[in-house]
Amino acid sequence: MIKMTCHGDDAYKYSDVIDFASNSNPCGASKKAVDAIRNNLDRISMYPDSDCVELCKEFAKYNNVCSENIIAGNGASEVIRLFCEVFLNKSDSVLIPSPVFSGFEANARLFCGEIKYLLLNSCDDFKINADEVLGEINRVKNRIKVVFLCSPNNPSGQFIPKESILKILKEAPETYVFLDESFIEFSEMDSMSSEVEKHGNLFVLRSMTKFFALAGLRVGCGVGNKNLIEILRGAKLEWNVNFPGQVAAVESLKDKEYIENSKFLIKKEKQNLFNGLSLINKLRVYPSYTNFFLVDIEKTGLKSGEMKSMLLKKNILIRDCSNFRGLSENYIRICTRTKKENEKLLDAIKEII
Amino acid sequence: MIKMTCHGDDAYKYSDVIDFASNSNPCGASKKAVDAIRNNLDRISMYPDSDCVELCKEFAKYNNVCSENIIAGNGASEVIRLFCEVFLNKSDSVLIPSPVFSGFEANARLFCGEIKYLLLNSCDDFKINADEVLGEINRVKNRIKVVFLCSPNNPSGQFIPKESILKILKEAPETYVFLDESFIEFSEMDSMSSEVEKHGNLFVLRSMTKFFALAGLRVGCGVGNKNLIEILRGAKLEWNVNFPGQVAAVESLKDKEYIENSKFLIKKEKQNLFNGLSLINKLRVYPSYTNFFLVDIEKTGLKSGEMKSMLLKKNILIRDCSNFRGLSENYIRICTRTKKENEKLLDAIKEII
Repeated sequence: MIKMTCHGDDAYKYSDVIDFASNSNPCGASKKAVDAIRNNLDRISMYPDSDCVELCKEFAKYNNVCSENIIAGNGASEVIRLFCEVFLNKSDSVLIPSPVFSGFEANARLFCGEIKYLLLNSCDDFKINADEVLGEINRVKNRIKVVFLCSPNNPSGQFIPKESILKILKEAPETYVFLDESFIEFSEMDSMSSEVEKHGNLFVLRSMTKFFALAGLRVGCGVGNKNLIEILRGAKLEWNVNFPGQVAAVESLKDKEYIENSKFLIKKEKQNLFNGLSLINKLRVYPSYTNFFLVDIEKTGLKSGEMKSMLLKKNILIRDCSNFRGLSENYIRICTRTKKENEKLLDAIKEII
Repeated sequence: MIKMTCHGDDAYKYSDVIDFASNSNPCGASKKAVDAIRNNLDRISMYPDSDCVELCKEFAKYNNVCSENIIAGNGASEVIRLFCEVFLNKSDSVLIPSPVFSGFEANARLFCGEIKYLLLNSCDDFKINADEVLGEINRVKNRIKVVFLCSPNNPSGQFIPKESILKILKEAPETYVFLDESFIEFSEMDSMSSEVEKHGNLFVLRSMTKFFALAGLRVGCGVGNKNLIEILRGAKLEWNVNFPGQVAAVESLKDKEYIENSKFLIKKEKQNLFNGLSLINKLRVYPSYTNFFLVDIEKTGLKSGEMKSMLLKKNILIRDCSNFRGLSENYIRICTRTKKENEKLLDAIKEII
């Protein structure tokens, strides 16, 4: 019997809050994406393309790979699940450096035998060290089938350098590196997706949920070696990506102006938010390569759940990080929004502590 | 390693054809459903409700059960897959009376050990006999974990009487009856969904794809005993039903006028289409409880693939039934569309044969 574990994104439960928890682009969705849905409302009675041909083409261009390197999913979540369903057996172990997005654990648990955790160190800003990952892979006799990495990491904001990933790929060729890059557009770093044909054990996850702000449409993709993608395509659910999702994702990926403008705005406001948070006594703000910040609130004397509740009374939603494995009630996560909203958050935190 | 088998719905590949293959409501989607998507375009950046609370409420009202009896899915397809994933093991057998929708076989194959087929008889209009089903269940020593039934049946149009289903439920209490009612609105028969609390081994599948013409949005649901649903909910993918799909389905289910008008129109045109087809020499049209007809074209001398190609040249798409297990190149399937479109089809067939 299989059973999923819980997640933390609960923004849909609240109305009229400023959402600093979901980590999505404060500019909202591309207008061209919204127009694409509106202009195609007469086609919702038709089945969507089960093979997502157009969508895979755009994802391929965006990732600098071929269409045959792409599998599209009902959100990145479905891609994680499909990967686990296809490649994991009860005799396999997986490795999850933590803290990290709970979706890896929730899905891997359904299909693998054992999950090993590599707890990252707060003193080292939760950085991932390739040698430690390799050490853990070599230590486990029942070999590690998949190591799940997230870069930039949710919730720490850390980026894993290309050379570290390449080292793991080369020195652990029997282990799949499942690399979640859902937040890479918010950084100024390059995706690893164009490396998939060189490294058959690399699988990169991309999402339309965060930077492209299409959470409601459920579109994501995996980028991998052609052989690996062929296997995943053969096992996927039919018609898995809905039609509005397909057209909106295609138009979003093509909308270079939206992409550039969003990056420009977020880069500026992210720096302002970091500066503002850092100036508040009693907060330890971790450095971040992406649009959100992990914050240690221990010195405020408040627990993360208390701070979440107090901010909710001011119509502000943050992420209580206490249910991240390897974190505690001392941690919250805050994402960058617009200048005005960020200022409102800073004022609210100052009032509370 | 898991691998899906092929399906037959390929309408999305063709543009500007009259689609007699997809079996959906010729009235199209409810205008209220379309408006609901349009009026909520500003919410596509938010995660959809992972638990589909509002949608489950409406599905529950529609099925005369409680919300706790409902699991919502990314199309009925995802519900089939989830059911198989959760309840089938490699030591289990399933029974599939055929010909029937290929999705049962495609999904069951991924998770069960063996599939038994009960081939239905064309001389008996492919009717399902409860005693034959029970005989097969009793015959198989490695007991049948699930029997997949479809009523009205796709592609035969046959309806399974309530007393037959009840007999199977009672006399094979260790076997789940997975009852696909995707086409029940097109019949004048009652759903079995309100029986789920009385019979823990009954699971009913409903779809928004066919009668509600929302194929592009991927929404369906399963109706079952509360314990069974709790297990399925615990194992499902997070955020599995997209936001436009959730709001459009809710409004469609509430739109009683649309439902009544659609039923009225289809009932009338279905009879006209049946009469028209029956008048064409060389066609044997099977009686149908639903909106489509299985047609034996053997006497025309044409194979189903040939007839499909010839009609496509006239911008008409029909379903070539040769890849249904238990059928052959002698069978096509045609669904009811508008008066004018049905007449165009009848003229086209007459020209061809």
